[in-house]
Amino acid sequence: MADPADIGLVGLAVMGRNLALNIDEHGFGVAIWNRTQTAVDDFLAGPARGTRIAGARSLAELAARLERPRRVLLMVRAGQPVDDTIAELATHLEPGDVIVDGGNSHFEDSARRCRELEARGLLYVGAGISGGEDGARHGPSIMPGGSTAAWPLVRDVLQAIAAHVDGIPCCDWIGAGGSGHFVKMVHNGIEYGDMQVIAEGYHLLHGLAGLSHDELHTVFAVWNSGPLESYLVEITRDIMAARDDDGEPLVAKILDTAGQKGTGRWTVSSALELGVPVTLVAEAVLARMLSALKEEREAAAVLLGEPAATLDGDRDSFVDDVRDALHASKIVSYAQGFMLFRAAAGVYGWTLDHAGIAHLWRGGCIIRSAFLGRIRAAYGRDPELANLLLDPAIREELAPLVAGWRRTVARAVAGGIPVPAYSSALAFYDGYRTARLPAALIQAQRDYFGAHTYERIDRPRGESFHTDWTGRGGGTTSGTYTA
Amino acid sequence: MADPADIGLVGLAVMGRNLALNIDEHGFGVAIWNRTQTAVDDFLAGPARGTRIAGARSLAELAARLERPRRVLLMVRAGQPVDDTIAELATHLEPGDVIVDGGNSHFEDSARRCRELEARGLLYVGAGISGGEDGARHGPSIMPGGSTAAWPLVRDVLQAIAAHVDGIPCCDWIGAGGSGHFVKMVHNGIEYGDMQVIAEGYHLLHGLAGLSHDELHTVFAVWNSGPLESYLVEITRDIMAARDDDGEPLVAKILDTAGQKGTGRWTVSSALELGVPVTLVAEAVLARMLSALKEEREAAAVLLGEPAATLDGDRDSFVDDVRDALHASKIVSYAQGFMLFRAAAGVYGWTLDHAGIAHLWRGGCIIRSAFLGRIRAAYGRDPELANLLLDPAIREELAPLVAGWRRTVARAVAGGIPVPAYSSALAFYDGYRTARLPAALIQAQRDYFGAHTYERIDRPRGESFHTDWTGRGGGTTSGTYTA
Repeated sequence: MADPADIGLVGLAVMGRNLALNIDEHGFGVAIWNRTQTAVDDFLAGPARGTRIAGARSLAELAARLERPRRVLLMVRAGQPVDDTIAELATHLEPGDVIVDGGNSHFEDSARRCRELEARGLLYVGAGISGGEDGARHGPSIMPGGSTAAWPLVRDVLQAIAAHVDGIPCCDWIGAGGSGHFVKMVHNGIEYGDMQVIAEGYHLLHGLAGLSHDELHTVFAVWNSGPLESYLVEITRDIMAARDDDGEPLVAKILDTAGQKGTGRWTVSSALELGVPVTLVAEAVLARMLSALKEEREAAAVLLGEPAATLDGDRDSFVDDVRDALHASKIVSYAQGFMLFRAAAGVYGWTLDHAGIAHLWRGGCIIRSAFLGRIRAAYGRDPELANLLLDPAIREELAPLVAGWRRTVARAVAGGIPVPAYSSALAFYDGYRTARLPAALIQAQRDYFGAHTYERIDRPRGESFHTDWTGRGGGTTSGTYTA
Repeated sequence: MADPADIGLVGLAVMGRNLALNIDEHGFGVAIWNRTQTAVDDFLAGPARGTRIAGARSLAELAARLERPRRVLLMVRAGQPVDDTIAELATHLEPGDVIVDGGNSHFEDSARRCRELEARGLLYVGAGISGGEDGARHGPSIMPGGSTAAWPLVRDVLQAIAAHVDGIPCCDWIGAGGSGHFVKMVHNGIEYGDMQVIAEGYHLLHGLAGLSHDELHTVFAVWNSGPLESYLVEITRDIMAARDDDGEPLVAKILDTAGQKGTGRWTVSSALELGVPVTLVAEAVLARMLSALKEEREAAAVLLGEPAATLDGDRDSFVDDVRDALHASKIVSYAQGFMLFRAAAGVYGWTLDHAGIAHLWRGGCIIRSAFLGRIRAAYGRDPELANLLLDPAIREELAPLVAGWRRTVARAVAGGIPVPAYSSALAFYDGYRTARLPAALIQAQRDYFGAHTYERIDRPRGESFHTDWTGRGGGTTSGTYTA
């Protein structure tokens, strides 16, 4: 039998295979197992040929092949398969061994698994891993959280295989319980937002301003060399250049119904639960759902009439305005995402390092961008910053964008082009900087019909007032539940 | 001992008390019980003096006092108190007896309770009741669902006490399981939307156009005599006229932080789960969360600068434009709400009568309006209507509003006034009537970084394509999970 392996890896879908190769390449011994044995055989005979990666024919054999304390990375489908695998695997482990779930598990599942495994003396890490197949192979962003005692045991492998930016690995300890998968969930939510703001720019520039895909290739290339430099803008540049077999732009042949796998939804649900107005991600998630109604939209286009506006005005300055709208909306989206971290840390008892998280996302993952370096700097200056929008440098970055952002939304609104993310982000920005909102009317209405009470601007917070608006109410407030 | 009572009522908060008086007034005998006995005594000695309402000192006594099969209406706080009360009450009931939960329970809890009680031979009704304290007293809207066999047993009481419009009670059977509370949940979500679109109008007319509260009183009175006639516009008219002790408008003294009790959030979470783009309710719920950040907003107003724009242009035509924006946004909101019904019916196996639901909401409840009569007519013409926006009469109602809607959003965007609901509704409208959305780019991106595959416009639905965009991918799609 070969030397004991440093780490076990379960699950040989594309992410698992690429992570195995990545770990091997960094000098760690990897033992692999997959529920379907042929996947192990095919992998060993194919991509893993010539590596030190070793196959196991059972979880028992996998466990027997590992150095102790054992470290096992699960790359199986989120949900029941993770629980099933853990249940079987745990019977072959000993106290002090570590299970790392590298899939897209819901953070509440990770929190539960962490509790359950710790109760059995095992250690658990829920590690969000982003970067797609390419990131997995060449250096992903890794967001590990869970059993604190596990971190020193898995740190060497995880930091070695992660992306590095400025010599610092894009992998560091997030915190207790499900915090790693929470940060990954928010990453994915922000990814939805980033993709939506790019899509809206594409719609405006192609659909309204009439830029060709070749011209758009150039536009995105230029944008990618400025403050918007990011992986998603970079691949959008490439996508604009991609041609179908007949020489036409490939993207024009793709059906316009966006899929989703759930983590965007989770982000919004979590934001709703925590009371954080993460409007841009919400609009991005809902926009994908609207896109899925392809047949209804086609019918509606006939009955309601389709937008047919074209740009009146200078095309180059419109391109700049759209760039500013995208840029400003993106700033708002990240501000909202970090608001969610702040709220979650308070509720779940985590201590989240905002600058550190921004760095984790700097490399390897789908949302990696130059902007994350500026976010890191902002939270580095003030770790307690109440909101990203209030940092001096971010304010300086945002201020010159606002006029073009407003012009873009106004132009889209006039031209009938939907820009849910740009307009929602703008509404958030304007709402956030408004000291007095019309919510007072909502409170008056709630008190009128439901005796929900209100607070007053001239009285201390926490004092409740009720008005008998109709002159015939019972004078009882809805808070008086006696049942 | 008195004659057996027709119905028992548990829980004497304001809703329970007023429903007891309402039921008594319609000639039904009511026996009441409350966990705190003094609430029973105070009620009998106070508002219920001179009625036939009888008190019970225990749930056992309450059960003993009822005609069989027994009917017991619970008006206790949603959540654990409902389960606790049911657990205790059920021990005093016999097969065939009916428990009606008239609180704001989550529809999934109602579905579970229905299953559990039916397994014990009991019948269960989850009945959404809307109308606030006034509706409860004088005729609410009631949305009952659950055990089909229960409906003939509770129909007489529930329809008698409900509001009536055109001689038809605003109470009819919704369907199985948790469908009654689902419809109530969506009602509440739409209520959030209705309140938000009124609040945005208030903000624009008061904050941007400078209308006084007296002028706004007149504006809302005029609106309430037209197609926007509704309870919420009516009470907004009254609120504008209400004065504080010092003669100043009372609403101006109310703190601008809107509260919420959860049903709006539930609507959005359910929409996310069902994949329905209910954007307007989402923005309304999130706007309340933003309003709650009062101190942060005050700080941001200083650092980011507050909007200080005033209206340039004709005030009267602006008032009309805002009215049209409110009206159009409201149409979109209801279209989205009924989309949610359609999706839920498919997933949960309900047969929802859309025209019937519109009628239930015509009277008694917070969102009652003339518009619901027009919705009822639309679904009466075509019960299978794919979307409210496609009905000929609704299209005719919407078409003349669109220009003013666009001008309003553009003006708000230029003036820095947040109109998240108006702009989100407009983005939805424009997206819905767009046959080709930029979601194709999102699919290209997803395939680029995650091998998620895409469909093509020139191939049948369901066929998946993957492009090796970088020329170095593994040719494996993310669907190939083998673990």
